[in-house]
Amino acid sequence: YEIVLLPGDGVGPEVTRAARDVLAVIGDFYGHSFNFTEHLIGGAAIDETGEPLPEATRAACVAADAVLLGAVGGPKWDGGKRRPEEGLLAIRKAMGLFANLRPLQVSPVLAHRSPLKREIVEGVDLIVFRELTGGVYFGEKTRTADRATDLCEYTVPEIERVTRAAFQTARQRRGKVTSVDKANVMETSRLWREVVTRIHAEEFPEIALEHALVDSMAMHLIRKPREYDVILTENMFGDILSDEISVLGGSIGLLPSASLGTEGPGLFEPIHGSAPDIAGQDLANPVGTILSAALLLRHSLKLEDEADSIEAAVAAVLAAGAVTADLGGALGTRGATEAVIDAIR
Amino acid sequence: YEIVLLPGDGVGPEVTRAARDVLAVIGDFYGHSFNFTEHLIGGAAIDETGEPLPEATRAACVAADAVLLGAVGGPKWDGGKRRPEEGLLAIRKAMGLFANLRPLQVSPVLAHRSPLKREIVEGVDLIVFRELTGGVYFGEKTRTADRATDLCEYTVPEIERVTRAAFQTARQRRGKVTSVDKANVMETSRLWREVVTRIHAEEFPEIALEHALVDSMAMHLIRKPREYDVILTENMFGDILSDEISVLGGSIGLLPSASLGTEGPGLFEPIHGSAPDIAGQDLANPVGTILSAALLLRHSLKLEDEADSIEAAVAAVLAAGAVTADLGGALGTRGATEAVIDAIR
Ligand SMILES: CC(C)[C@H](C(=O)O)[C@@H](O)C(=O)O
Ligand SMILES: CC(C)[C@H](C(=O)O)[C@@H](O)C(=O)O
Repeated sequence: YEIVLLPGDGVGPEVTRAARDVLAVIGDFYGHSFNFTEHLIGGAAIDETGEPLPEATRAACVAADAVLLGAVGGPKWDGGKRRPEEGLLAIRKAMGLFANLRPLQVSPVLAHRSPLKREIVEGVDLIVFRELTGGVYFGEKTRTADRATDLCEYTVPEIERVTRAAFQTARQRRGKVTSVDKANVMETSRLWREVVTRIHAEEFPEIALEHALVDSMAMHLIRKPREYDVILTENMFGDILSDEISVLGGSIGLLPSASLGTEGPGLFEPIHGSAPDIAGQDLANPVGTILSAALLLRHSLKLEDEADSIEAAVAAVLAAGAVTADLGGALGTRGATEAVIDAIR
Repeated sequence: YEIVLLPGDGVGPEVTRAARDVLAVIGDFYGHSFNFTEHLIGGAAIDETGEPLPEATRAACVAADAVLLGAVGGPKWDGGKRRPEEGLLAIRKAMGLFANLRPLQVSPVLAHRSPLKREIVEGVDLIVFRELTGGVYFGEKTRTADRATDLCEYTVPEIERVTRAAFQTARQRRGKVTSVDKANVMETSRLWREVVTRIHAEEFPEIALEHALVDSMAMHLIRKPREYDVILTENMFGDILSDEISVLGGSIGLLPSASLGTEGPGLFEPIHGSAPDIAGQDLANPVGTILSAALLLRHSLKLEDEADSIEAAVAAVLAAGAVTADLGGALGTRGATEAVIDAIR
């Protein structure tokens, strides 16, 4: 299996290394050979090549079986001609990654670390499907001295494919989809709601579908997060809501994500950022990236047992309190990674 | 003083009546004469005239000293040719209401009702300045069978005026402004950030200014809401974030808002919606609308003592537990209103 590693910026390199070490152990144990190659993206790529997504990186990613990314960005590149984030947006587009999946489970062991009351968050088990290649992210932008514009656009096929992915996942879960839009204001949201309603009626009538407005959803996710199963939404709303939800579990450092296309490799990354303030100090929580590696095994390599094995090891380590400082533990990035590796063995 | 009442839909009429009764008592007590006239807006206006904002309503609002609104919308008008919300957007535009202010204080008395832990929310004291006449709400929309678009646009003067309003308020508070955008993706956000930075440097250098991305702000507002003083943002982000914050205090039924223009009357409304499920049953919490009436006295009529008197009465009533069911109390809309009126007397 060819796996491309994109360490990126800030804590990216150390958490990517942690996940690679875990994958290597899994490879030995189950008898797979993972071939890792590292490529530049983001600020690190700007520093070396002037481009946030060099052509060599793009070519390697589309040819790989899967891609594991650390994080991009940091104040170092503020105000520069090119921005590190451009690299991330460009690789999503180049790989055709239209669905960003963010699963969230709040474990009873860590519920006490949530800013929310235990009775609200314990047992939360949801997954966000965020559309990733449309919306205001990729529409035309204009700028004059006095005025700026961003175009938000969606086509029917773009909405259909992420909608199908969300409904298919709901079938394997609790059978409920909540589609989020702003249909009382936006034309793209009215199209979104029409398409989701039609796909539901034609192809997934057995799934429970509800529509919610993004503003009230921002409330409901705090008041009653346990009610949600699959949350389906467009690019920008998904960006905001999935970050909002990410605090429910007590540490954003725990959370993985998968970005998938129709076929071809997926891209897997923790949802935390590059955290330049703690970079290189063995402080970053590697769990979000390690769990992203588990999603990589499951979604791109179809190695379900191997993915389960990583997830079980992480659960054991969290239950034992072998965690980094963001979770009140005493371990560093390396120590927490070793704990996961020991648990796998 | 000419005050236009726009009861609107759902619980709108009963909460508007509650606030009018409170204003009448204040008028008697301080010797002002408030002249109330009622006009149609939203679904109620569609039912009677076919238009969500009849011309008579528009004319009365721009000629008044202030406008007090209940709520608009409801499933009854779903799928109709005209939507109730159009009336709200049109009156904001017609009155030139560019700044929507949403103050939030979490009282120690009610902190236990928050979904967040007491130590996180107790003492929260912030105000959101949401730009109200620009952004994706009012840009051009297009629609074909296969595709929809919404244009988000901002001009420099639009950003300048709401920015000045936010900084002026920060001067009278704790002297801190957090400006929220998505400058790593949106051109309008980059313009937003430039203008806010320039106005700060040129006119308000003594105020502390920080910039935050909307996605990380959605997290921070749950993890550390006490750190914020004045939050300044564009129309759509303000819609989402201010609704998110509204749950911190335990009931959205408590929260008021003010929408202000450069001169001319302001529009004041509770931030809760029309809640058609409980309409007409004496169940709605009138406090959000009563506190909106206090903001009306302060901002549009410049009656500071009178506003303070309402706010003190509400605080006393909340402390005494004379509250509606959403706060665990036994009172109805009328009973809670009478409690506030007794406290004023
Ligand atoms: C870095 C940024 C462009 C990106 C986004 O907004 O998509 C990030 O916030 C994310 O969610 O992956
Ligand atoms: C009803 C709707 C159009 C409105 C908005 O999005 O502005 C509402 O959510 C609000 O915040 O006042």
